[in-house]
Amino acid sequence: MKPLFEYCLRLADNGLILGQRLSEWCGHGPVLEQDMALTNIALDQIGQARSLYQYAGEIEGKGRDEDQLALLRSSNEYRNALLVEQPNGHFGHTVLRQYLFDAFNHLNYTALCQSKSEQLRAIAEKSLKEITYHLRWSSEWVVRLGDGTEESHSKMEEALDDLWMFAGELVTADELDRQMLEQGYGPDLDKIAPSYWAHIEATFERAQLQKPENTWWQSGGKRGVHGEHMGYILAEMQHLQRAYPGQQW
Amino acid sequence: MKPLFEYCLRLADNGLILGQRLSEWCGHGPVLEQDMALTNIALDQIGQARSLYQYAGEIEGKGRDEDQLALLRSSNEYRNALLVEQPNGHFGHTVLRQYLFDAFNHLNYTALCQSKSEQLRAIAEKSLKEITYHLRWSSEWVVRLGDGTEESHSKMEEALDDLWMFAGELVTADELDRQMLEQGYGPDLDKIAPSYWAHIEATFERAQLQKPENTWWQSGGKRGVHGEHMGYILAEMQHLQRAYPGQQW
Repeated sequence: MKPLFEYCLRLADNGLILGQRLSEWCGHGPVLEQDMALTNIALDQIGQARSLYQYAGEIEGKGRDEDQLALLRSSNEYRNALLVEQPNGHFGHTVLRQYLFDAFNHLNYTALCQSKSEQLRAIAEKSLKEITYHLRWSSEWVVRLGDGTEESHSKMEEALDDLWMFAGELVTADELDRQMLEQGYGPDLDKIAPSYWAHIEATFERAQLQKPENTWWQSGGKRGVHGEHMGYILAEMQHLQRAYPGQQW
Repeated sequence: MKPLFEYCLRLADNGLILGQRLSEWCGHGPVLEQDMALTNIALDQIGQARSLYQYAGEIEGKGRDEDQLALLRSSNEYRNALLVEQPNGHFGHTVLRQYLFDAFNHLNYTALCQSKSEQLRAIAEKSLKEITYHLRWSSEWVVRLGDGTEESHSKMEEALDDLWMFAGELVTADELDRQMLEQGYGPDLDKIAPSYWAHIEATFERAQLQKPENTWWQSGGKRGVHGEHMGYILAEMQHLQRAYPGQQW
């Protein structure tokens, strides 16, 4: 697999899988406005993924289009971080998962605006407006629920217990990340990491949430090793394309 | 669609979809013995479905084998009753769904032992031993939970509220049922119905459960009109066959 192709899949798969997860909320949100907010974020993310798949398809050069890349791979070919495939849980879980992702994604796409690749720069610049809104939305909800009622606070603590172990994978550079950095395509995750943890610390302080001390991280998604949920996500997500091959968006 | 073919699908799809639902319990049962019981029932039902699909494929005469019939149709081509596609819910839901189905299935297969079709007779005779065991298992659990603790009783009442409306479709004859009766293939549902309700009444009495007075029934599954759950069942169930077409059991 060409490194830049695989790197684009990482970016795209994060958007697609988290978008797919968020879309499960459609019609089930706690209030109408937030139902629409979640669905809008889902659409943004799937839109970003689409641009990235188109670019990835060009790099790969085997004639696979965005539909084939998005919908016709098997689990071990997806490169999303484990965080984004975690279940929606309750609203607090969804909000925290989104925040932990957005805080990273915002830093990551900001840095991608300096990529050597013109296409990556263009996608990052376009996406950054949307991601800025996502981060504002998710961090405000973390604060509102964390610093809300006793019940909402304890639900956020529960979400934190469940999701914290997946945060570190996002900002831990592996060989591919280092390769992309050296070649000028991708950001320096070692520089992004401190900003990421600082953002979380500041938000958690406003939210009256204790940042866990645990820094042992689950990892694997970025290199295609996914958890038990992934198969179910793909089964549902790919059903139409598998049942009617060749259908287009 | 040839009537006898469609009728075989009704029988087969009931087994397959309920078997698929039960298999979701595998590894999640309340105690090991019941986990295994549920999985064994699932296997029996899928095995019965398999024989019926083979026979249905012969009748249809288009060269479709059991895999294609089981795994490559779309939702509106499945002919299972709505009851069997209902979610597992808690253990009480699963037990009650199973009982409402088994009580019908036992009567239905007993009558099928008189079918004009030699193959249907053979399948019914072979299946009946298994179904007799299923019915014993599910009716005993209805009694144990209904006449158990206050909590188990109220959970069975909850299950009854959710599932009762799906019982009637099983024993309500439609045009295809009448056609099968006239031609000597299928049983007389109008004769089965009173025995079915009597079985339920006797079991519910032992279980200290009140038989609901409501006799308005949800229907549609038997003619291919399914509820919202069906698509998700199929997405999961068909994923492997859709992703790797032509794979065999």
